[in-house]
Amino acid sequence: MPGNSFGKMFRITTFGESHGPVVGVVVDGVPAGLQLSKEDIEFELSFRKPGKSFVSERKEIDEPEILSGIYKGRTTGAPVAIVVRNTDVDSSSYEEIRYKPRPGHADLAYIKKYGYENWDYRGGGRSSARETVSRVAASALAKKLLMLTNTWIAGHLISLGPIELNCNVSLEEILCSKYSSLRCSKKDFEEKFKELVKDALAEGNSYGGVVEVVAVNPPAGLGEPVFDKIKADLAKAIMSIPAVVGFEYGLGFKATKMKGSEVNDEIIKKGNSIGFKYNTSGGILGGITTGEPIVVRCAFKPTSSIRIPSKTVNLRTNEDTLISVKGRHDPAVAVRGVSVVEAMMSLVLVDHAIRAGIVPSVKLNNKDSEKIEKNWRRYISSCKP
Amino acid sequence: MPGNSFGKMFRITTFGESHGPVVGVVVDGVPAGLQLSKEDIEFELSFRKPGKSFVSERKEIDEPEILSGIYKGRTTGAPVAIVVRNTDVDSSSYEEIRYKPRPGHADLAYIKKYGYENWDYRGGGRSSARETVSRVAASALAKKLLMLTNTWIAGHLISLGPIELNCNVSLEEILCSKYSSLRCSKKDFEEKFKELVKDALAEGNSYGGVVEVVAVNPPAGLGEPVFDKIKADLAKAIMSIPAVVGFEYGLGFKATKMKGSEVNDEIIKKGNSIGFKYNTSGGILGGITTGEPIVVRCAFKPTSSIRIPSKTVNLRTNEDTLISVKGRHDPAVAVRGVSVVEAMMSLVLVDHAIRAGIVPSVKLNNKDSEKIEKNWRRYISSCKP
Amino acid sequence: MPGNSFGKMFRITTFGESHGPVVGVVVDGVPAGLQLSKEDIEFELSFRKPGKSFVSERKEIDEPEILSGIYKGRTTGAPVAIVVRNTDVDSSSYEEIRYKPRPGHADLAYIKKYGYENWDYRGGGRSSARETVSRVAASALAKKLLMLTNTWIAGHLISLGPIELNCNVSLEEILCSKYSSLRCSKKDFEEKFKELVKDALAEGNSYGGVVEVVAVNPPAGLGEPVFDKIKADLAKAIMSIPAVVGFEYGLGFKATKMKGSEVNDEIIKKGNSIGFKYNTSGGILGGITTGEPIVVRCAFKPTSSIRIPSKTVNLRTNEDTLISVKGRHDPAVAVRGVSVVEAMMSLVLVDHAIRAGIVPSVKLNNKDSEKIEKNWRRYISSCKP
Amino acid sequence: MPGNSFGKMFRITTFGESHGPVVGVVVDGVPAGLQLSKEDIEFELSFRKPGKSFVSERKEIDEPEILSGIYKGRTTGAPVAIVVRNTDVDSSSYEEIRYKPRPGHADLAYIKKYGYENWDYRGGGRSSARETVSRVAASALAKKLLMLTNTWIAGHLISLGPIELNCNVSLEEILCSKYSSLRCSKKDFEEKFKELVKDALAEGNSYGGVVEVVAVNPPAGLGEPVFDKIKADLAKAIMSIPAVVGFEYGLGFKATKMKGSEVNDEIIKKGNSIGFKYNTSGGILGGITTGEPIVVRCAFKPTSSIRIPSKTVNLRTNEDTLISVKGRHDPAVAVRGVSVVEAMMSLVLVDHAIRAGIVPSVKLNNKDSEKIEKNWRRYISSCKP
Repeated sequence: MPGNSFGKMFRITTFGESHGPVVGVVVDGVPAGLQLSKEDIEFELSFRKPGKSFVSERKEIDEPEILSGIYKGRTTGAPVAIVVRNTDVDSSSYEEIRYKPRPGHADLAYIKKYGYENWDYRGGGRSSARETVSRVAASALAKKLLMLTNTWIAGHLISLGPIELNCNVSLEEILCSKYSSLRCSKKDFEEKFKELVKDALAEGNSYGGVVEVVAVNPPAGLGEPVFDKIKADLAKAIMSIPAVVGFEYGLGFKATKMKGSEVNDEIIKKGNSIGFKYNTSGGILGGITTGEPIVVRCAFKPTSSIRIPSKTVNLRTNEDTLISVKGRHDPAVAVRGVSVVEAMMSLVLVDHAIRAGIVPSVKLNNKDSEKIEKNWRRYISSCKP
Repeated sequence: MPGNSFGKMFRITTFGESHGPVVGVVVDGVPAGLQLSKEDIEFELSFRKPGKSFVSERKEIDEPEILSGIYKGRTTGAPVAIVVRNTDVDSSSYEEIRYKPRPGHADLAYIKKYGYENWDYRGGGRSSARETVSRVAASALAKKLLMLTNTWIAGHLISLGPIELNCNVSLEEILCSKYSSLRCSKKDFEEKFKELVKDALAEGNSYGGVVEVVAVNPPAGLGEPVFDKIKADLAKAIMSIPAVVGFEYGLGFKATKMKGSEVNDEIIKKGNSIGFKYNTSGGILGGITTGEPIVVRCAFKPTSSIRIPSKTVNLRTNEDTLISVKGRHDPAVAVRGVSVVEAMMSLVLVDHAIRAGIVPSVKLNNKDSEKIEKNWRRYISSCKP
Repeated sequence: MPGNSFGKMFRITTFGESHGPVVGVVVDGVPAGLQLSKEDIEFELSFRKPGKSFVSERKEIDEPEILSGIYKGRTTGAPVAIVVRNTDVDSSSYEEIRYKPRPGHADLAYIKKYGYENWDYRGGGRSSARETVSRVAASALAKKLLMLTNTWIAGHLISLGPIELNCNVSLEEILCSKYSSLRCSKKDFEEKFKELVKDALAEGNSYGGVVEVVAVNPPAGLGEPVFDKIKADLAKAIMSIPAVVGFEYGLGFKATKMKGSEVNDEIIKKGNSIGFKYNTSGGILGGITTGEPIVVRCAFKPTSSIRIPSKTVNLRTNEDTLISVKGRHDPAVAVRGVSVVEAMMSLVLVDHAIRAGIVPSVKLNNKDSEKIEKNWRRYISSCKP
Repeated sequence: MPGNSFGKMFRITTFGESHGPVVGVVVDGVPAGLQLSKEDIEFELSFRKPGKSFVSERKEIDEPEILSGIYKGRTTGAPVAIVVRNTDVDSSSYEEIRYKPRPGHADLAYIKKYGYENWDYRGGGRSSARETVSRVAASALAKKLLMLTNTWIAGHLISLGPIELNCNVSLEEILCSKYSSLRCSKKDFEEKFKELVKDALAEGNSYGGVVEVVAVNPPAGLGEPVFDKIKADLAKAIMSIPAVVGFEYGLGFKATKMKGSEVNDEIIKKGNSIGFKYNTSGGILGGITTGEPIVVRCAFKPTSSIRIPSKTVNLRTNEDTLISVKGRHDPAVAVRGVSVVEAMMSLVLVDHAIRAGIVPSVKLNNKDSEKIEKNWRRYISSCKP
């Protein structure tokens, strides 16, 4: 029952546990001729990295090591394997949970599935959010390949706990939110979010949040009816992220309260082409991209690890007990989640772009390779504080 | 870029267009020894059938024909192919849309992807909701196999347009909603929903709605981290349904407004096992089923086909124009959507149950075969009006 | 454990039993814009059809019915489903084998796998060579798509029992062997083969044979190291055919008796490109096509169904017994096997051509569509007797 | 176009180049509870290791490093990643081939597929036989899991160049051939093989050979008609090995010269079961294992790298030239190939055993875990010289 691979034409396979020696990923299906450096990967990892703000306390240096698939700075068509060492690992605080499955965590589910005696409880093992390092590392390649069509992916946090971003935000503001410590696209809301985080930290509690991610300038025609629709594959990709409990695109759940005449978009002339006026469908119709920006949102539940004691059962004594999680954890996992949602969207889009023949499956010619590099340079220097 | 198959161990491949001769499905991976009759399939199809209420006007007799895989009333391990003839097909009303892509529909996306000259515009072709007949037909096999663990799947409509079901509903009420013309689990709300549908019909407009589906008594341990988590595969399955624009499970988007201490469930003793007190996580933790009921919800946008004229562009003249859809259509597609969501959930669960070795992949022994048949009889006779 | 699909980008799913109502296939991944008629499929089926010579006695009219995926004579990008009715079916002669598994047949293996009570013994059920109708029907689409690169596939019988074709044969002779009743590329050998078949018929016995298939003018660069090498995928495809027990390409087993200096081909200039002098590697190096003709051979064992009595065990009485197969059968199944091997090769090549972006995955433009049609007309009119 | 994964339920993904830092593999789908040590993997690698005889000159210390998926000496159900560092790498001798593609090698095919500028020519890059380290490392897990049904896999060299093993060999002799420097199951033939190798070395030439591998005591019922037949999946697996150019099972190509009455096996009573007298079909009928030993053979062409100069074209000057390969190479790659063929067979069998539910997909219970360990101990201590 392997479940650690994602994608058909651009396929990643991840491995590694929170407290094992590494987390890693093999990316198979990368066309030859893509320029790729360690720095490209570090750039993407830097936005998911804990320790840069007060949000998380783990001090990791996420330094990727490329093990294969690159020769003279370019991909060869062979699989690209990347590992990131786990440093600053201290498993001692996990001894307690060995007998006390944590509410809201995967503990009990893993025990029921794989057997208590086979359970790697240290740091959540494979169910840790640490696993998402592999996804973000792989997304550096995906995001670069999408530069061929100049498709940029950008996300931000649109609600944290009870506070919702209730104003219009420009695409540039979303893009530049990556340099906000709370992935907030609006300064005034960033302050509100910060207050909330402080309260949560003081209380030993946590908040959930909603993340919105946009793909700007996506190719039209991505998505394969009737099961591999782009909306279905995006949903799968994003719902596979730890702590994500809901997904929508376009108007999403709001559309259920509306009438057809309000939701149906107007089809209008756009230059030489035909497009949509309001993009109420978030860039997707019939499960296929229309060429309009793709807009998705997802719900992160509050971090399960909290200092406040929760009720559980001691597996050794079979008695009711309490557990209070003492390790370092985010009070708002949605913040770091933004870059993971971005990563998953990029993986889906590049996979479908290759399936549709829009990004070549075998090799890039030199012109394409340079176009990618140029757009990528523009991307990584954008918004620099 | 094939996209018309779903599932790994229990795999369906669908085919057929709204106005072609048939819609059909091949189900591969059915263990030998499952008793299967045409009536079993008809039973499931009857709940998605239009024409039984005022909701839809198309008068189809959805009679399945089993083409393979059955010998003496039992599956042989060979693929089961099922077709349903399309009757009562009248393509004349679709001539207009040939040049006027309909807002909210797949028309423009299909044209951009496959080319205008290759577009089967009659009745929406492959993007028609008619395609879901294949899914529901296949779900008869899936639902039967789930009877091995006595897992029942039941759905209902929890909101229609602005009206939300705001009271507690029992599992039995959900189950018995299948005999409600509007898939409503509460009599009083059924009346409110009916009023709304009448208004929509009169207005030539449509409403969206939210569907909730529950799997009762599911096996624990389904779902394969980190990508084939059960929440991810359910999301993909359900988001692949036409008109579905959002998905959540457990508390879903509501959890984003809450604190960790509110969302984390209590772990408690349950008989000889250990379970959860409130099932806030909808039966899923770490992407693996916990054994508690699986609870998912999804958002159907309002039917795109409405009589009220919408703005579009005439593809021949490149001029702005209006289109008013005259064919027969549901004012509330979510109603018939309930059985499709049920179908997709059953396909995911049986696929994962086989992956996990809980339902056998090759053959059922006679005891299991009879257990399934007994539970199935109980299921189809339940709630009979 | 579904096993009835083949291919990743051009994917077929087959269904149907020898004595069921139909055999059929769903072809998913066909780009839009391919012209396709019932006659195209009939053309390919005609070369696998029994009853045209004395080789087989079953009188089937293999008339394909296209159920989906075509509109106005062109593919739409939707899955193409094709069924062929089983006519002239008489199951009465199979009652005996119900208790007497036939040596050399799949009977005992099916019984052990799926259970005796679930076994469709009529005509071999799913293990019948009748199943290959689905493959050949699907190959009409594959062969047409390969016309985009003007790649033609042609096979012939190079040995029957003890008689081996021991002379040089031109590509044209191979191609034109399709109109030979014994798929023989040389007139004099055709006579020898005929004698052998007559003897076998008289004796109630059967012969094996070796089939050679060549792809002329294939694209270079097909095959994905290290597991989806073209030689590996061709081997899988061809070894999946009933009665095939061996596969080789290029020099094949002969190379094991030779030295490196004899097997290594000379690399030479060929016009503006670089190629190979003797094509000892059968068009494949490193698992990737070189652009030289692809040459494969496979071994068909003698037909298992023979009139001469064989020893078996009566499953009811558990006593040793004899069985003599009375139904109509080929004394030389390799003859009809040629078109099935051709079919499987075409499926592999088109799948890889789409994976490599050489044949488009989504749609053909009009120019490509016409080029295909023109080459196809040339192909089907070639060698006409 | 990813092609570096193999298997559906027990899935390996390999990466790494001959002269890169590592070769490695991720094994996904390993049930939890399998005891696994570094030594288990080293044991299997030792039989593919060069440098133990005069056959190969590369001095590698193939020391596996387990990066994930193991906790306290047991698998957890998470993917198991293994890397082996490349030591003793000297790329200097490869500078010449940069402009002179080697006949018989993958060079020209890689250049045509991936582009000259993206070609990692050092040591053959990804097309090097070094890649098979990953397969053999993964096979340690596969072979251990097959110990659950006490299925042992053993191979030997049955011909080298013109010399064929022409006597009966016992299963024990095949098993113990692993301690023969030339994988020969008969002492007298080992001497003949040695002479041949000496001649080849002196001549700067190489020989091909035929490898036979047997699975003793395999489960019946493996293989999924009609495409994932066990014969088809074994063919794909083994044909994916570098230098393999042919595959057969049972009587193989010999059967083509025989009559049905000679090839059809006798079905006989065997204890409480029913089996076959001569196993002419090599343990496979209808593409499904019968429970008799599985017998396959494959053809290795002579090593392409030879000291004798071969004709090629200089890619810079476009002039005819000669190349003589100077790096260290086997004169008989089939010798080390035996353990690779064994590895591929074990991967196929365990994959199908999990698909069929014979080896559990999720976790082993303690009893099974201990049974495996006991059989494994017996296996690794067998034949010890």
